[in-house]
Amino acid sequence: MDFSIRAANVEDCKDIARMIMELAEYEKMADHVKVTQRDLEQDGFSKNPFFHGIIAEVPEQHKTKEGHTKIGYALYFYSYSSFKGRAIYMEDLYVMPEFRGKGIGKALMSKVAQLGLAAGCNQLSFTVLDRNKSSLEFYLSQGCFDITANMGYHCMRCEGEALEHLAQP
Amino acid sequence: MDFSIRAANVEDCKDIARMIMELAEYEKMADHVKVTQRDLEQDGFSKNPFFHGIIAEVPEQHKTKEGHTKIGYALYFYSYSSFKGRAIYMEDLYVMPEFRGKGIGKALMSKVAQLGLAAGCNQLSFTVLDRNKSSLEFYLSQGCFDITANMGYHCMRCEGEALEHLAQP
Repeated sequence: MDFSIRAANVEDCKDIARMIMELAEYEKMADHVKVTQRDLEQDGFSKNPFFHGIIAEVPEQHKTKEGHTKIGYALYFYSYSSFKGRAIYMEDLYVMPEFRGKGIGKALMSKVAQLGLAAGCNQLSFTVLDRNKSSLEFYLSQGCFDITANMGYHCMRCEGEALEHLAQP
Repeated sequence: MDFSIRAANVEDCKDIARMIMELAEYEKMADHVKVTQRDLEQDGFSKNPFFHGIIAEVPEQHKTKEGHTKIGYALYFYSYSSFKGRAIYMEDLYVMPEFRGKGIGKALMSKVAQLGLAAGCNQLSFTVLDRNKSSLEFYLSQGCFDITANMGYHCMRCEGEALEHLAQP
């Protein structure tokens, strides 16, 4: 199937917000989603953006029955490893279910890898839910490794009242 | 003990590189460290830096026997959660062993939290090695939670030849 990968722009935020919610529902995490289309517009497409995005698009003749031609996305930002140096972090990789198995997810991830290498990054980092076995298998098949399982790294988070409290001097 | 926390500048990179190696040795990861003082200077203190840093410093009278007054650091960068929005990522929090237990680590982390909140971030993220029990306990005591243990998030990485291969279209 014909598809193209291109940089996201502010007009894509409506579809990105839709697909973030689809991804969250797939991961049974929908009640965790606070991000709106407007947040994405402000946070990704103003000066000093917090993230960048790429979009997978299909031609009109392949649009979904709801009329969508933007059928996948990845968000990423530049990050740093104090051991390895420049890195790129992939926050989300998503392809709508009916378009899976056509190499679109691989093409999106490949683009993120290209962007990282072009910026001098030595590694691509991301997280995956351990119950998302098909994604985990896909990533392992691409030569990625699970540094939680292999090296013992745990992801930690502080938010809400705990974050406010931590910030008290 | 008197200490101060301040933004890192390019002159701090020699000490940050030294302390990155101390941290790596503490974590038994010294052979993973590729980052040099020069990398830190270029990657953190040029246009569009990949990270920012803060330094903990003690007065001359408390310097170490080797003469160090820069005795702790944290590196951080801004990131994004497609579910929760703006986030700050703490890459490394380190205090030299002889200065631990004096609130310096807490003060460094508190500063990162303040910087995150000031930038509109909703969460502070970081990783910890599961064998680093004292750090894990400290973080949990601050209200952080372990999203690997609690929610099943695994940290993944692609680097070296696998990354080059992934980037092939």
